[in-house]
Amino acid sequence: MNQEANIEKQDSNGSVIFDTIAIIGLGLIGGSIAKAVQKYGLGNTLIGVDLSTKHQEEALNLQLIDRISSLESAIEEADLIVLATPVDVMVQLLPQILDLVTQQVVIDVGSTKTKLIEAIAKHPNRGQFVATHPMAGTEFSGPKAAIDNLFENKCVVLCDKEHSSPKAVKQVETFYTKMKMKISYLNPVAHDVHTAYVSHISHISSFALALTVLEKEKDEKQIFELASGGFDSTVRLAKSSPDMWVPIFKQNREHVLDVLDEHINTLAKFRSLLIKNDFEKFYQLIEEANTIQRILK
Amino acid sequence: MNQEANIEKQDSNGSVIFDTIAIIGLGLIGGSIAKAVQKYGLGNTLIGVDLSTKHQEEALNLQLIDRISSLESAIEEADLIVLATPVDVMVQLLPQILDLVTQQVVIDVGSTKTKLIEAIAKHPNRGQFVATHPMAGTEFSGPKAAIDNLFENKCVVLCDKEHSSPKAVKQVETFYTKMKMKISYLNPVAHDVHTAYVSHISHISSFALALTVLEKEKDEKQIFELASGGFDSTVRLAKSSPDMWVPIFKQNREHVLDVLDEHINTLAKFRSLLIKNDFEKFYQLIEEANTIQRILK
Repeated sequence: MNQEANIEKQDSNGSVIFDTIAIIGLGLIGGSIAKAVQKYGLGNTLIGVDLSTKHQEEALNLQLIDRISSLESAIEEADLIVLATPVDVMVQLLPQILDLVTQQVVIDVGSTKTKLIEAIAKHPNRGQFVATHPMAGTEFSGPKAAIDNLFENKCVVLCDKEHSSPKAVKQVETFYTKMKMKISYLNPVAHDVHTAYVSHISHISSFALALTVLEKEKDEKQIFELASGGFDSTVRLAKSSPDMWVPIFKQNREHVLDVLDEHINTLAKFRSLLIKNDFEKFYQLIEEANTIQRILK
Repeated sequence: MNQEANIEKQDSNGSVIFDTIAIIGLGLIGGSIAKAVQKYGLGNTLIGVDLSTKHQEEALNLQLIDRISSLESAIEEADLIVLATPVDVMVQLLPQILDLVTQQVVIDVGSTKTKLIEAIAKHPNRGQFVATHPMAGTEFSGPKAAIDNLFENKCVVLCDKEHSSPKAVKQVETFYTKMKMKISYLNPVAHDVHTAYVSHISHISSFALALTVLEKEKDEKQIFELASGGFDSTVRLAKSSPDMWVPIFKQNREHVLDVLDEHINTLAKFRSLLIKNDFEKFYQLIEEANTIQRILK
């Protein structure tokens, strides 16, 4: 961990931004960041930290990281610390990590921001932390879920950056830019509202659809024989891990509740039109929904 | 149109099942059937019928069909007539088509079955009709949406086959088997209940999600910048055409209403757990939803 040496290396090599990178939490996102670091040569050494020995072994076997370390050693050795645990663990760990850092830069990659930033708002080392959310993922979890190019051409949100040191922000921006991500800036509340709309509600919707059809399957064993691509894509996210998602819903409870109410109201609107046989208005609603094409690929 | 000659050809060629095939409705499904017929050599001549001159031209340019014809000539010339229009048009057209057939086999490929089968239940040529539903599709429509291999390894449902002539059923089974489809059999009501669960509700859910987020976009212009793969997959079906889907919801109104009520209830359960801060039960529901993995790929 030597910021000056590190910057020299960046100059000579043109790519390395942090000499040693510690990844706390070797799951889908942590593992995919490790892959991106290797692909783009953004660091020289990758240290992994994970409570699960199974995940430790998998991450080593998959060569996601160079070695496993304790949290304390990882913090000491690293130039960049990437916090990639479930968001409830982040809120516990981040203050402890900031207690130990001097010049190390710390980022999180979590799906909620308000609670996390509150937890360290007055920490003397607040400046070393940059809150980030790379908007990418899949329904799978663990080191084996890590994939190449997960982040390319995706968006990463930086939150509350005016409370991070400008130097740390610049390094983190470079880190994500080299991973070919587009950077956006939001305050933590706006971030949490946005993710409630474009990510969290999709997950609840998928969980609920899966449960609705699984419930029916108790009577009708063959119901899934007919399920085709449309069903698969709307319930794909229902495979997502509760260990990751429950903490997100817990932390973003109020915004998720608002969006869930709106979604239920929209479904109730379709329901009411069906009841009233008002297929003219039903048609108009679908036409309106179709305008989503300008956003989706 | 000569069934005997046709059967001879099948014997000598081993693959052609119907010499001349007429496709009524040159959209995603009709066009993809034409592609499958060509790929597997299931017919010698493909005739297309469509009210839209734009679709006629596109289908010819894409070489989906050999030529365009009037409905009457197509019926007269064809050995197999594939009805691939929206389901409301099917209910109008099928009795008229059956009025004109002698030995021609007629199939539909629609997403609802009860109303259609009711419409021709007592037709003297009922036996020439086989009700089928290849469970495959995308959110796109028109001849340009036709794709290769849409049907391979997918399921096709035959309904009410005991009212079709055994010979017609056998030919249609061979037709779909050669397209590498797996055949299931359901009565029309069971079919309509199943599709309400594994297809129709997914579409309403996607339309509603799209509308919920589009509504929010009126205040928050940048909301979609953050939308990632999870959002895309849950709202993909929201691009689906109202011309195709409104008639489906209309015909399957009662079953769709039942499933929609169940889905809204399941969402309300998640809502209630959020309100009560009961994240233990929330966790259990997600774990239960996760069991969908055994069904999805």
